Amino acid sequence: MDLRAKTDDLTGRKRPGFAAWMGSTNTVTQTFLAAGQIPDLINLAGGLPAPETYPSEEIAAIAGSAVAEHPAETLGYGPIEGLPALRDALARRFSGPSLTLTRDNVLVTASGMQGLDLLGKVLVDEGGLIAAQFPTYLGALDAWKPRRPSYRELHLESADFDAHAALEGAQFAYTVPNFSNPTGRLVGTSLREALVAAAHATGTWLVEDDPYVGLHYDGAPLPRMIELSATRGPPGPYRGPVVYMGTLSKEIAPGLRIGWVLADPSLIRALATAKQGSDLCTSGLTQRVALAAIAGGLVERLQPTIVALYRERRDALCAALETHLSHWFSVEKPVGGMFVWAVARDPAIDTDRLLTAALAAKVCITPSSVFDPRGRDRRAMRLNFTLNPPERLEEGVRRLAAAMRSLEAEG
Amino acid sequence: MDLRAKTDDLTGRKRPGFAAWMGSTNTVTQTFLAAGQIPDLINLAGGLPAPETYPSEEIAAIAGSAVAEHPAETLGYGPIEGLPALRDALARRFSGPSLTLTRDNVLVTASGMQGLDLLGKVLVDEGGLIAAQFPTYLGALDAWKPRRPSYRELHLESADFDAHAALEGAQFAYTVPNFSNPTGRLVGTSLREALVAAAHATGTWLVEDDPYVGLHYDGAPLPRMIELSATRGPPGPYRGPVVYMGTLSKEIAPGLRIGWVLADPSLIRALATAKQGSDLCTSGLTQRVALAAIAGGLVERLQPTIVALYRERRDALCAALETHLSHWFSVEKPVGGMFVWAVARDPAIDTDRLLTAALAAKVCITPSSVFDPRGRDRRAMRLNFTLNPPERLEEGVRRLAAAMRSLEAEG
Repeated sequence: MDLRAKTDDLTGRKRPGFAAWMGSTNTVTQTFLAAGQIPDLINLAGGLPAPETYPSEEIAAIAGSAVAEHPAETLGYGPIEGLPALRDALARRFSGPSLTLTRDNVLVTASGMQGLDLLGKVLVDEGGLIAAQFPTYLGALDAWKPRRPSYRELHLESADFDAHAALEGAQFAYTVPNFSNPTGRLVGTSLREALVAAAHATGTWLVEDDPYVGLHYDGAPLPRMIELSATRGPPGPYRGPVVYMGTLSKEIAPGLRIGWVLADPSLIRALATAKQGSDLCTSGLTQRVALAAIAGGLVERLQPTIVALYRERRDALCAALETHLSHWFSVEKPVGGMFVWAVARDPAIDTDRLLTAALAAKVCITPSSVFDPRGRDRRAMRLNFTLNPPERLEEGVRRLAAAMRSLEAEG
Repeated sequence: MDLRAKTDDLTGRKRPGFAAWMGSTNTVTQTFLAAGQIPDLINLAGGLPAPETYPSEEIAAIAGSAVAEHPAETLGYGPIEGLPALRDALARRFSGPSLTLTRDNVLVTASGMQGLDLLGKVLVDEGGLIAAQFPTYLGALDAWKPRRPSYRELHLESADFDAHAALEGAQFAYTVPNFSNPTGRLVGTSLREALVAAAHATGTWLVEDDPYVGLHYDGAPLPRMIELSATRGPPGPYRGPVVYMGTLSKEIAPGLRIGWVLADPSLIRALATAKQGSDLCTSGLTQRVALAAIAGGLVERLQPTIVALYRERRDALCAALETHLSHWFSVEKPVGGMFVWAVARDPAIDTDRLLTAALAAKVCITPSSVFDPRGRDRRAMRLNFTLNPPERLEEGVRRLAAAMRSLEAEG
């Protein structure tokens, strides 16, 4: 972001400055934007689904009939919290033997990202403390920048991780327990239990951001933290500290921009107050399409195809990394999600520098610095495997290896 | 908003407090929400279009074909700034003899409200100064609350209004020149010229929020301030201080949640940075529907019908006010928009109190206190005429007169 003071063309008077948080935007975004112009670039940097999985015929039919059958709901203003029928459908979908949800536990959001933005607005004053799983999803850091928070880094996989100390005194703790963005790591059940216990013991809100829950390639899904929390609480609608966030972006299509927050009704009301000043309400058209897709079982019909496609691509990327890049980077094969996290064996390797060399070799990666609230971690990179077919993934890794050799030649 | 500290059901530990701005939310919203439960209520309070004007058949057809013909754009992630084809269409629509706009001057937003939210994020630090036309659109006050701004009230109709002093030192000046919400007032051409001249002279951004531009019932539209500003500037794409905001909510249907900001490219880039952390991008589905509706001339086809319907309703409301309420309130007949502003003749009348009496009489109005950043103005009320047919408008005013009599009986 160019923050030099602009002046009026006529009078030369300076325009007012931008808000202070804008000075902290990183330059990697600009690099990515410029990368979009490179012909034949292999994009391993983004977090994009494979477009061939989008159910366009079904959605085309649903969209037309949604407007024809529900003109007032699709075309008018709707309730801030979301269409009642969609809130009810989401409450039913996530309720289970241990978890009771009602409409009052549900806020429909215009994307998972909006849920993060609203959370920052409601819970963070300037300088407020966020405890966040480290490394941290870049989008969450972006969403909270206007609040200028301070961060406590949670190293969940560390042997001496203390959940109580991690949560105490923070406004909320942010986690992506299923196949974290960026690392692809799965948080195990006992650690989930410990985080939930600490949330109850400290009072701190525990955010369970779960966009990738449907993308598990090996084994069965683990219990959600909101379910583990409900098991501890009294019967009746959920009133505990877990704030569960989901989205249709990976289950159906991101273009709908439909997400949801499941939480204690008092927090839902506060988030709705913030949503009122953010966009008044989510589009009734996209909400009705989402409702018809969920009610019609589209998510369940799509999932096996998506999982099979992404499992093959994960395997292809990991095999290529083993063949071409294991000299420089160690990789854990993720059991789900969209990303592989590659950590440099030599701490002198700088993945910000690698990005520049990679772009020259026509491949794009995301350096670890952008997932660090302080921007210091330069030792790893995130690679996406969902967008490209196996042969492109392998070619991308070959180009990355060429980029590493060019860096070594530079010294 | 109930801000009492919640506690954990299991441990009794307090949850973290909400952000400080949430303490300033008003109670009128709660009153409105409760009003929704009153049977046979006549709602003169909202700002809702007449649902019978929504072109549901056309939009149903457009929505289906948009997905079928553009699956990647409607269902995938799109550029933060909006679909290039929609940005181009908006640039063409608003360019004219004096104003040149390109794609770089255009940000597509998920509603006009989102444009206001992004503006607050980009331009306002805590306590920053906003100069705002008084009384001020409630939604704008809501959008900026999380930034906790200070306000300079601009009394544009005052004989000693000094545009230069009004703008000097503010981050931006906020105006609704066409049929202001709440007053319905039209800002005349010479005052528009003075505001534009002051924006150039001071460097301050001048926000021209223009949701009602299509709703003029008497006479022709006046020049936009962004056009007046462009006339002063050098040739080429617009780089001046006016920030123009529009929406499809009143031209087609609010359920699409499509708005736009037209401004200097440097401000568009800054707003896009804020949008990235707010919702990543606007739905491709609603953008493609908006583009097809604009390109197919739907806005122009709908306008005469909407204008004729609303003109009749405005006349009906103003006639009823003259007959039943002129003893207590003076009213200016607006030449456009959605609202009539009624000012009490007796300064002792308190429209917050009137709201309670009105609800008992089954009619809802918006008291002036919510349009005052400091909440002090209790002397006026906003009445909407677009939602209800003439006979309901007249019945609503009769009920308001009954409410006034009941207040007088109370003393």
